[in-house]
Amino acid sequence: MAEYARIEETGKPKVVIIGGGFAGLELVKSLSNANVQVILIDKQNYHTFQPLMYQVATAGIEADSIIHPFRKIFGSQQNFYFRLAEVERIKPELKVVETSIGLIRYDYLVIATGATTNYFGDEQMADKAIAMKSVEDAITLRNTILGNFEKALQIDDQAQLNSLMDYVIVGGGATGVELAGALCELRNHVFPKDYPELDFKSMDIHLIQSGGELLKGMSAEASQKSLQFLQELGVDVILHRRVKSYDGYTVTLDNGDTLITRTLIWAAGVTGNPVNGLKPESILRGNRLLVDEHNRVAGYDQIFAIGDIAAMVTPENPQGHPMLAQPAMQQGTLLGKNLVKLAQGQPLEPFVYHDQGAMATIGRNKAVADLILFKKGMKTQGFLAWLIWMFIHLVSIVGFRNRLVVMMNWCWSYFTYDSGNRLIIGRKQENAPLAETLQRKTVL
Amino acid sequence: MAEYARIEETGKPKVVIIGGGFAGLELVKSLSNANVQVILIDKQNYHTFQPLMYQVATAGIEADSIIHPFRKIFGSQQNFYFRLAEVERIKPELKVVETSIGLIRYDYLVIATGATTNYFGDEQMADKAIAMKSVEDAITLRNTILGNFEKALQIDDQAQLNSLMDYVIVGGGATGVELAGALCELRNHVFPKDYPELDFKSMDIHLIQSGGELLKGMSAEASQKSLQFLQELGVDVILHRRVKSYDGYTVTLDNGDTLITRTLIWAAGVTGNPVNGLKPESILRGNRLLVDEHNRVAGYDQIFAIGDIAAMVTPENPQGHPMLAQPAMQQGTLLGKNLVKLAQGQPLEPFVYHDQGAMATIGRNKAVADLILFKKGMKTQGFLAWLIWMFIHLVSIVGFRNRLVVMMNWCWSYFTYDSGNRLIIGRKQENAPLAETLQRKTVL
Repeated sequence: MAEYARIEETGKPKVVIIGGGFAGLELVKSLSNANVQVILIDKQNYHTFQPLMYQVATAGIEADSIIHPFRKIFGSQQNFYFRLAEVERIKPELKVVETSIGLIRYDYLVIATGATTNYFGDEQMADKAIAMKSVEDAITLRNTILGNFEKALQIDDQAQLNSLMDYVIVGGGATGVELAGALCELRNHVFPKDYPELDFKSMDIHLIQSGGELLKGMSAEASQKSLQFLQELGVDVILHRRVKSYDGYTVTLDNGDTLITRTLIWAAGVTGNPVNGLKPESILRGNRLLVDEHNRVAGYDQIFAIGDIAAMVTPENPQGHPMLAQPAMQQGTLLGKNLVKLAQGQPLEPFVYHDQGAMATIGRNKAVADLILFKKGMKTQGFLAWLIWMFIHLVSIVGFRNRLVVMMNWCWSYFTYDSGNRLIIGRKQENAPLAETLQRKTVL
Repeated sequence: MAEYARIEETGKPKVVIIGGGFAGLELVKSLSNANVQVILIDKQNYHTFQPLMYQVATAGIEADSIIHPFRKIFGSQQNFYFRLAEVERIKPELKVVETSIGLIRYDYLVIATGATTNYFGDEQMADKAIAMKSVEDAITLRNTILGNFEKALQIDDQAQLNSLMDYVIVGGGATGVELAGALCELRNHVFPKDYPELDFKSMDIHLIQSGGELLKGMSAEASQKSLQFLQELGVDVILHRRVKSYDGYTVTLDNGDTLITRTLIWAAGVTGNPVNGLKPESILRGNRLLVDEHNRVAGYDQIFAIGDIAAMVTPENPQGHPMLAQPAMQQGTLLGKNLVKLAQGQPLEPFVYHDQGAMATIGRNKAVADLILFKKGMKTQGFLAWLIWMFIHLVSIVGFRNRLVVMMNWCWSYFTYDSGNRLIIGRKQENAPLAETLQRKTVL
């Protein structure tokens, strides 16, 4: 029999939230004045502002600017308790969560564990590719890119050189498009200054998208314009193709074509990140949890799910809502209100998604935006979209101080064509060893 | 026979510099217009501004603000070549350096490898203590401190609790004093807000100094006032004591007294960091290289040493110059000029150390400074010294952008009593397992 984790007994109903992503964060905020005990469990002590992760990966901003300690965000919220722990399983029959620091009791449990990279069962891909789901992934990618160039300096062989200097990005969603654009900007403006001994004209950036359009889910205009922007920057966009395999060196496409790279970035899919202990019938395809219009998990009274992990299946949304920050935040906010109502025995309010649009930035002065303002659509691409993108992301970042640091970095980069953090510190993806004859020269 | 590393052949004399600390950096700068090929070898791709490392360790500023990629610093210097590599040995008879990326030829070799932590042969200490010689050490310390509090939340037993919340710093030099002060400021102002469930009145910070004075090498006034400042903040300063052993839990002093902590920070000594391949007679006690007044290593014509690794033994400096940034930078600058003279067959200029004084900051508004301005000494302690310390460190940090970020962080901390980066990301010192009965609860 496992012991209980130590958490102050306040005598108030315990709302236990697993995961401090966008959904969990908004739920905690929404409960700030509620007469409950809010217990947030996360395996990190910080929230990650995922939309800017690609800028960390491309040395544009400090990792520290997009991650925010929970204790700092909620330090003044009296009913807030944080526990750094890994969740092992839920025991709904006992109303406890089994964690690495002991059992934690709940009255209401909210699963906000988000999504994780989906390699569709390809273990070799999972091993060799770099994902983009955590800030540690982003730092790994940054270190790998910079390490590749240092290694490239020692290479004669053209094929080996290309394998270090070329990049393949799989997945033409926002992450893939933004990464491809940012890498191209670096290639065009920054890397040649840092590595005058390398020829960056031979650096290729390939973006592979299984369907016929980029930024699926956005408007046709956004999709077409993002393709045009990427091609103008010099990205090789390959549509209607899937990656069949990747061994750390050769990428094989479904038509048999091959590309050579030591750095494949996998941004091609995500899958829900459920916790153990729930009935199988609550879990849908894609590992998402089936929830009702109040975000209550099917088959449970006291268990809720919000954000990417929750699939609120309705006639209008047969797949659930898109796995994006907006529905996650809106669900978090509403669930906070509903939990208060539940405690007071009042009827709950059903969730209605207010889509405010979507946007992606491709490079300097180049972005696409489909906005929905006062229920009216507005589509724009180019400089104006880029300004809107910057403004929205700046105001969304948690904390005044981080906003200032990020803004400073952006202004600096914009006027100097010189982005900030080209540091190799921390983890690096270990490249497959180079061909025998070249190997000795390239150990870093 | 090992291969040569690939580096462009410019036909100019090759000045190979091992190490990009303060000395190496100034030497590269000093050679910016010289008709030579400057090749800097370092195992990191960045320079570390060591004086502010303690602020990274205590979550005051971003690690990225105090480290600067060499390629960015010297991107516009035409004769500059950087190689990320580990040096294995020097072969003076062949005038080559054997490195992890191959052999590198030199005409003039400059050893600027600095110093490393000296555990005086105590392997258990080396294993259990946290050092403060690299930015990775600093990040490890930051993660360990924050991780300790998260663990402490799960502990009943008072001795175990103290082991996680108390800190022992060994060494009363600038690093030890500044760390102790910064930790106390955090205990007094920041941690209680982040961890309202913990009682920080029971958090002890011990600073152990073998001699009778702190900041040895500074004035008696600075030493006394720093002791007073630390005691006012609440540091337990233990003078005239050495640490006999540390097993990861119990610190035993030379008089048999014991202290309990899971976090011992070792700032008690450094030793030179020489490279293989030099004659034993060139290496002095403390692993420093004996150099003449032109920083030429004893017994060699084309090999020089600058900075902490160099011991320029003179009647006035029987131990060589202090292992500090100032002599290192001055030696780097002068050697640059002398190498140009050497190539032109002109007589060399002997090194004369211009001591500009020393300073240390203990906390908010509390610093000590012994300045030497226009050959006149000036001693000040308190608020003015603190302002001077801030000003000098800000202007010394490489790069306008980093200066802004650091200044912003300082202003923010000063007015809000809330320092920035309380993130657990990256490496953490693994604590010894807690006593059997408590262990299960405290796995993070």
